[in-house]
Amino acid sequence: MGQIEDRLTAMGLTLPPEIVVPPGVKLPFAFVNVCGDRAIASGHGPQGPDGKVAEPFGVVGHDVTVEQAYESARLVALSMLGSLQRELGTLDRISHWVKALGMIRCGPNFGQQPAVINGFSDLILELFGPDVGRHSRSAVGMSSLPFGMPVEIEAEVLLHP
Amino acid sequence: MGQIEDRLTAMGLTLPPEIVVPPGVKLPFAFVNVCGDRAIASGHGPQGPDGKVAEPFGVVGHDVTVEQAYESARLVALSMLGSLQRELGTLDRISHWVKALGMIRCGPNFGQQPAVINGFSDLILELFGPDVGRHSRSAVGMSSLPFGMPVEIEAEVLLHP
Amino acid sequence: MGQIEDRLTAMGLTLPPEIVVPPGVKLPFAFVNVCGDRAIASGHGPQGPDGKVAEPFGVVGHDVTVEQAYESARLVALSMLGSLQRELGTLDRISHWVKALGMIRCGPNFGQQPAVINGFSDLILELFGPDVGRHSRSAVGMSSLPFGMPVEIEAEVLLHP
Repeated sequence: MGQIEDRLTAMGLTLPPEIVVPPGVKLPFAFVNVCGDRAIASGHGPQGPDGKVAEPFGVVGHDVTVEQAYESARLVALSMLGSLQRELGTLDRISHWVKALGMIRCGPNFGQQPAVINGFSDLILELFGPDVGRHSRSAVGMSSLPFGMPVEIEAEVLLHP
Repeated sequence: MGQIEDRLTAMGLTLPPEIVVPPGVKLPFAFVNVCGDRAIASGHGPQGPDGKVAEPFGVVGHDVTVEQAYESARLVALSMLGSLQRELGTLDRISHWVKALGMIRCGPNFGQQPAVINGFSDLILELFGPDVGRHSRSAVGMSSLPFGMPVEIEAEVLLHP
Repeated sequence: MGQIEDRLTAMGLTLPPEIVVPPGVKLPFAFVNVCGDRAIASGHGPQGPDGKVAEPFGVVGHDVTVEQAYESARLVALSMLGSLQRELGTLDRISHWVKALGMIRCGPNFGQQPAVINGFSDLILELFGPDVGRHSRSAVGMSSLPFGMPVEIEAEVLLHP
């Protein structure tokens, strides 16, 4: 489809299909909202190839290791890229990454939030390169997240005219 | 005043007056900050018709049920619409909802954040319709919120020129 | 350098040097990301004159008092201003403050988040004045923050053309 899609294929990565919402859950918002040259991605969680929220579930630093949560954050990136592609047609329309807010389910003594959200940032930077992929970021600890997910990330990108 | 205000009236809803800040609290920021065609709404809590922070207080999933917190999130929407109206003159100036960050005071095992923040999203979508009201969203769990509030939401909208 | 820098000097304040990242930590994102007329500041923590994360560490309301956390939030503002100055050349390029998300490490019963983040807002308003410094804000409680920091703040500003 596009150059970014080609790079995803070359990296051996596949974007997941539309999010399969857990039974009984109503999500009345847009996964990606395009506003002029901005596209705002809602909070995404790790998604498996079946479209469902991906394991592991639990508290990072307790039930889920930092290494596992890094992989979850990488799956969040793929989930968000899937939503962006469905909304934009091709990821080549992204001219610049703006920011990401990385949220981790963890206890009061966890301090390795950056190491977890690097799973997201590393993939974005590898895929889009250091210029387009450059983004500001926060990585912080939440008391809990929807459906027991260990990681949720929201982000904003700019689009080519 | 405007079409959105007429719809509010038709829905039997009234916007609360200016926020009555709890004694001894200093809030030196703008409840709504207009920047060009963007209006940024600060984190708002549920507000009663007297302008004060509205009950119930407490931890969602423990002291406050999901159904009660849904109502609190609806009151947050009305509080934010009140601030937007005071800053903009009329809510008809809103051309598009951009995003909302929904924050819920809850314990480590709570996972129904979306069901709570739907109280906000459902009202915005009913009031502004599916096009103007379309917004991206995150709904996440906080360890605590100011004044013991169960829900706080910040948002961004775009304005007509 | 600029008028804001002169005011900082008149106030007896010095901006800290580049952030000294704790050993073994990789932060692959931009501390400030300029996107057109917007500059997005990543989540910053309190920084000491040696560039390292500044004491005190711990949970606000438990290990760290509200007064100490107010000072930490003031140090966050200086850290962020240092990052903005390095990216922009001079702080005079800032035409308007847009928003700040103030995040506090605290327990489930803490409710004085605004009093803490006022350490950030008060400094921004004193330095930039009530017009340019005017910003929307949220101040909320997190289960934990990177490196045990008591406060982390992310923000957005607009730039002169």
